[in-house]
Formats: sequence, C-alpha cells, structure tokens
Amino acid sequence: MPELRRDYLLDKWVIIAPERKKRPHDFKISKPKLKKGSCPFCIGNEHMTPPETFRIEKAGKWLVRAFPNMYPAVAKGSEALMLDKEFFYSKKAVGAHEILVETPNNEKQFYDLSVEEIEHVLQGYVQRTASLGALKNVRYVLAFKNHGAKAGASLMHSHSQIIAYNKVPGIIDEKVKASGNYRRKKKACPYCRIIAKERKSKRFIAENNGFIAFAPFASIQPLEAWVFPKKHLRSIVEVDELRQLALILKKLLLKLKKLNAAYNFYVHNAPSGKDLHFHIELRPQLSKPAGFEYGTGTYINVISPEDAAIFYKK
Amino acid sequence: MPELRRDYLLDKWVIIAPERKKRPHDFKISKPKLKKGSCPFCIGNEHMTPPETFRIEKAGKWLVRAFPNMYPAVAKGSEALMLDKEFFYSKKAVGAHEILVETPNNEKQFYDLSVEEIEHVLQGYVQRTASLGALKNVRYVLAFKNHGAKAGASLMHSHSQIIAYNKVPGIIDEKVKASGNYRRKKKACPYCRIIAKERKSKRFIAENNGFIAFAPFASIQPLEAWVFPKKHLRSIVEVDELRQLALILKKLLLKLKKLNAAYNFYVHNAPSGKDLHFHIELRPQLSKPAGFEYGTGTYINVISPEDAAIFYKK
Repeated sequence: MPELRRDYLLDKWVIIAPERKKRPHDFKISKPKLKKGSCPFCIGNEHMTPPETFRIEKAGKWLVRAFPNMYPAVAKGSEALMLDKEFFYSKKAVGAHEILVETPNNEKQFYDLSVEEIEHVLQGYVQRTASLGALKNVRYVLAFKNHGAKAGASLMHSHSQIIAYNKVPGIIDEKVKASGNYRRKKKACPYCRIIAKERKSKRFIAENNGFIAFAPFASIQPLEAWVFPKKHLRSIVEVDELRQLALILKKLLLKLKKLNAAYNFYVHNAPSGKDLHFHIELRPQLSKPAGFEYGTGTYINVISPEDAAIFYKK
Repeated sequence: MPELRRDYLLDKWVIIAPERKKRPHDFKISKPKLKKGSCPFCIGNEHMTPPETFRIEKAGKWLVRAFPNMYPAVAKGSEALMLDKEFFYSKKAVGAHEILVETPNNEKQFYDLSVEEIEHVLQGYVQRTASLGALKNVRYVLAFKNHGAKAGASLMHSHSQIIAYNKVPGIIDEKVKASGNYRRKKKACPYCRIIAKERKSKRFIAENNGFIAFAPFASIQPLEAWVFPKKHLRSIVEVDELRQLALILKKLLLKLKKLNAAYNFYVHNAPSGKDLHFHIELRPQLSKPAGFEYGTGTYINVISPEDAAIFYKK
C-alpha cells in the first residue's frame, strides 16, 4: 500500500510506492521493455489494460481512452494514518492513477496529432479531472504528460497520466496562498496582471482568442513556457473552447519536436473550493537538476526566458 | 552577467546564466567533450585551469587542488538590483564558483580514494567554505559533488564544486526556521532528537565515533541517505575529526559503486549567524523527477527507506 510521508520538519512530501517496482531489492528501476507488437496501448490490445474509465470514439473505433495504471502510485481505500508521532507523519496514499492514451496510432506523438485530436485529449483531461476529483479523500487531481525517456516516459505510445490523491500539492498550496494574499491587497488576481505585463514583454510567445503563452520571468529550465487562459478560469474544466488551447499547445510543441526534446507538461487547476488562475506549465528536459539544484532549490538555467521566447517565435 | 530571479509570486529562485553555454541559440547544453590526454584536472595540465585558490601537497606534488570554475554560475562584482517591480524581482548573481579536484589520479573516483585522501577532500570543503563564506555579499556556500553523467557530472576526473552566492537557499531557510520553531517550544535541536530516534529505527545504516548515517523517513529518492555529526555542530568547519566523516562517506559510497550508480551529495551547513545541525545528504540518481514531481513537488519513491537501509547494511 503506497504511503504519503512528510519530511521530519518541512512541508516536503513523498509517496513511498514499492509496489511500482517488481522485487524489493531490484534496484534497476525501469520497467521491462515490451516486445514488438505487444504495446498495451495499441488498438487490438485493449484486453491488456484494466477496464476502461473513459473513451471518445467515432464509427465504433476509439480515438482516446483512459484506464487505471497497472503500476499505480496511489491505491484505493481509506487514508488511515499509519504513524503520527512528532517527526513521523504518514498516511496511506489514496486516490486513482490513470493512463490516457492519446491516439490509437503508435507512430504519432502528441505534436503530430491534428488540432481536433488534441482537443479530444484535452476533453479526456477535463472529464477525468472532474470525475476523479469527486472521489472520496481526493484533494487534488494532476493531469500531466511525460514525453521521451529523458522526461520519464517509459512507453513510447503517446499517452498522458492523471493522478488524483489525498493531498493538495505544496506548489499549488503556495500559489493559492500567494494569489489570495495579492488579491486581498490589490483586489485583483495576480496572474491576470502578470499576463497583461508579459503580453507586452520580450518573453511573450503567442496568443489566440482564448489563451496566451510566454516564457516565465524566472524560468527554472531552458525553454520553459507557461500557457494561461486570458479569462480568469480556475480549472481546465471551465474552458469553453478547448480548440484554442489545443492550437497553442501544438504550436509550442512543434518547436520542441524540431529539437527532438523530451518534455513534461502539467495542468495547474485550483483545488476544490479555492481560487487560482489555471495554467499549464511546459518544461522541456534539456538539462537536469544536479547537486546544486538539489542542495539549494535554486536552479541554474543557461537559456534566458527572453531567448526562449525568440526560439518559440522563430 | 548571471542573474538571480525570483518567481512572480513564490519564493522560488533561478540563476539565469547564459554565459555557461557557448552561443545564445545553441540548445545543446552539454559542454564539448575533451580530447584524450587533455583533461584539465590532470597533473601536468595545471596551466589549463584558472589560478589555484587552494592545494594540499606532499613532497612537492599536489593531492587536492581548487580553482575557479571556467563556466561559473555566479560572477564577481556587486549585486545591484536590475529590476524591482511588483512581479519581477532580480539581482545580479554574485559570489564564487570553484572546482575542487579530489585526486591527481584520473582513474580513481571518490569512493576509490583512501580514507586519508577523502579526508584531504573534506579539508578542502572546510577551507573553501570558510574562505568563500567571508566574501562580500555571500550569504551561503554550498559544497557538493556530482558523480556520473546521470547526476550532472560533465567531466569524469573526480571533483567536487563549491558555489558561494548571494542568497540563503530556500531549503536551508526552511530548515533553519523549522529548527528554530522546534527549539523555542521544546528547548532542543530537532535533529539531535531525530538522530536518537533513527539510531534505533529500521532506517539506521551505520555509525562511528563522530557520525551517524540513516535513510531518512521521507526519502524522496531511492537509496537516499543522510549523514549527521552526533554532536550538535553547525558546520563542517566545526568538525574535529574529519577522518570519521571520511570513513562513513566511503562506506556508503562503496555500496553505490557496486550498482555503478550516479549520485549527488551536498553539505548543509547553517548560514552565518544561524543555527542548524549540519549534515550531508546523499542522493543516488536511480530515478528521475518527471511530470508528477515537477507538477506537485511530491516525489514518488519506489524504494522505501527501510529497504534502503537493508541495502547499505548488507
């Protein structure tokens, strides 16, 4: 049973999930490579995955489908505390961990999909975010994507993941608090103001009717880009036109395709009952954190966001 | 000139250091590979490095030497603010960035060194930490090591790094604050108490006269291990017997050698004028953060610290 543990003193958390590897003393972490033709995400191999939780189909064939991850980082059940002494805070890590296969076509990656197909993927994010968010004990749902081995993807077939779990992530908590503090003082959403400023800055990348993309002022990784709805929405679930989001994501990702860059992106919605201007953070994996980053929390980024914006606009 | 930037709203920092790569639009980040025989850290090639800042020698030959990094993440000079508006806080990143070559022998890694040789390296940490900590505007000095490409090492010749810069790292700040809060309530150092508890736990790994090692309760990475002095010391500079620290580090690292694992470790001293029970965190790089970790700050660790302790004790 996976366990959520808190640092002795700090608000830093880990999910200890030994179930995700095969044997307790097998320190090779990567999952076994699949034989050719045996991709469980391919059409015809639906029996290799747990029962489906979502699909979009056309003419009887699925276009996008979701199902529970076979190696979940969280489990079903109660979140009973296992230890609760002075320095040893822990509870069961409960919720749901799903895979969203983005296309039946093994040879296409996210950026190769048509805008309409990307829209289907985003519909999947919306539906699974709403559905898993309603589960008992779930306090947050993160939809995210790992593309390429350097970004942690273990299967090539293009897919996203949704993890719903019993904690509001520290990063989200900080953003919600900082937004609330700003709003109390200035009577406005800070991100609405940041968007207006970045739209006129050298970090601006692109915009359309619904969304804007820019390289954030304090980008911690090379070519980092953030995508915000121009209207103040709290969640991807509230988006009217997912097509606009699909368009801007595809535009950014096609640039990364040229570099053959691995990347991660994730959706930052407001937690239930809270306010946060929702956005997507895109983090190409062109460098990796090392001793200095781990030891300080301060990143070293060798590409300025101003140069990153030039790259995306070229 | 490298620049320290703060996130729009959060206490998250980055050093934007485009000087560390060669051309503004060269997105291949890694440094050029060296030709054989041209390792700048080898004996005989001292002219390839900037002037030495420290050495230990025997019979006229150096055993350990330090010098400024040719690709520094921070620069000399004043920390003048470059921007200071509502959301755009930035100052120049100033301080010093040094390399500490651990051995003249290109074929030995840290764990291959004798205990006496490791002691020399640690003497280098002590001397450079004290010396760079006295520079104007420096608020913290981090001594750290990246071993192996997966841990961010770009040169094979065994070396450590010291970065002194004009900010107390967020992680250190949090540890100092949490320690202070505990001390005010309980009249004791929390880490002194944690050490006493972990010494009797399943996470205990090893101890000697001066130091103790254990796998921390909320280890965020597989096989993470922490090393503390048993006495309450605030800095590696205060250690009486570096030999004991050398012994315990070598013991841990020899286990990682068997796995051929890349690893990082770093020294967490108290910042000037503050209190923190100093320690070293050792983080093998057997898995990498991906979308979930970046998006939440919560890590998923597939090896429990209890299993990690078994591994180190075997």
